[in-house]
Amino acid sequence: MFDPDGPVLGIDPGLTRCGYGAVDHGSSGPVAVGFGVLRTEPDDDLPRRLATLHADVRALFVDLTPSALAVERLLFQHNVRTAVAVGQASGVVLAAAAEAGIPVTHYSPNEVKLAIAGDGAADKAQVQAMVTRMLRLDARPASPDAADALALGLCHAWGAPLRDAVGAAAPAGGGLRDAIDRALARGEGS
Amino acid sequence: MFDPDGPVLGIDPGLTRCGYGAVDHGSSGPVAVGFGVLRTEPDDDLPRRLATLHADVRALFVDLTPSALAVERLLFQHNVRTAVAVGQASGVVLAAAAEAGIPVTHYSPNEVKLAIAGDGAADKAQVQAMVTRMLRLDARPASPDAADALALGLCHAWGAPLRDAVGAAAPAGGGLRDAIDRALARGEGS
Repeated sequence: MFDPDGPVLGIDPGLTRCGYGAVDHGSSGPVAVGFGVLRTEPDDDLPRRLATLHADVRALFVDLTPSALAVERLLFQHNVRTAVAVGQASGVVLAAAAEAGIPVTHYSPNEVKLAIAGDGAADKAQVQAMVTRMLRLDARPASPDAADALALGLCHAWGAPLRDAVGAAAPAGGGLRDAIDRALARGEGS
Repeated sequence: MFDPDGPVLGIDPGLTRCGYGAVDHGSSGPVAVGFGVLRTEPDDDLPRRLATLHADVRALFVDLTPSALAVERLLFQHNVRTAVAVGQASGVVLAAAAEAGIPVTHYSPNEVKLAIAGDGAADKAQVQAMVTRMLRLDARPASPDAADALALGLCHAWGAPLRDAVGAAAPAGGGLRDAIDRALARGEGS
């Protein structure tokens, strides 16, 4: 459950696939302390699937003891049917967070892309590549949903220094990666 | 919690106002055994409001021991923002139902109107008048959300005999109310 010294847990809500990724402060920058995908059985009925997601999210909180949740904001769904389904999954995740006393911050996809890739219009491959590099993972996360969740966690835990780095690098028109490295190194002690 | 002999609990999900209405079989037709509105504090943050709704719905299940839930189907929301919000509230309600072992059936607004008022295009006032009459309430429920929830409960518990009555009355072009009365009387022993 809630631990003020715990990692930031990013969650990309969904009923079929709910990505999660926990990011903590390591000795040389941010580290991933757990990531993956929660799935529910498509053959189960909707209430059962939502109850399974609720239980699985609570189990994650027990395992990962997050200090904060970073959750994707849902205002950009393309159609109403998708919006209802993703809303149902996010409702269960958010209720579980409040029940566990874990504070939640929402980020739009553009805010995450800007924080991680320095570009609010970055594509998924760019975000995944930056997440892999920033967390020094051996390979890109197999699931894009887990990668998106790690990006959310990074955005929350490291967003401010990253935004500063992007701002500092922009006038020179380059050096973004170096600036990000410096920002990540500065964030170590925080 | 779940009781196979308990009432049918209709729920019209919402975060600001979540209507509920429990309908049971009385000695002379359907009776309302509880109805009202669950509200959450608009000044609380979204996760807290969803957790409050989750707790309040579970408390309803303990109080009313429903045998079944009848919940409004959400495919007809007009805009994506509303769809997300109502989806979040419904997600919490449906998860709570599965957690309590209570089976859920969804009904579209048109199905409810057809079952209650004999007309899928009936307006809210017609539905409320029929609910008040069928449940022999002293007055219309003060909250339209509670009335909608009672209509959902009636639709589930009494929908089949009501549909038969509407079908039988239609060829003669009238006598709908008498036919409904006969259908409700027939349902007593069920």
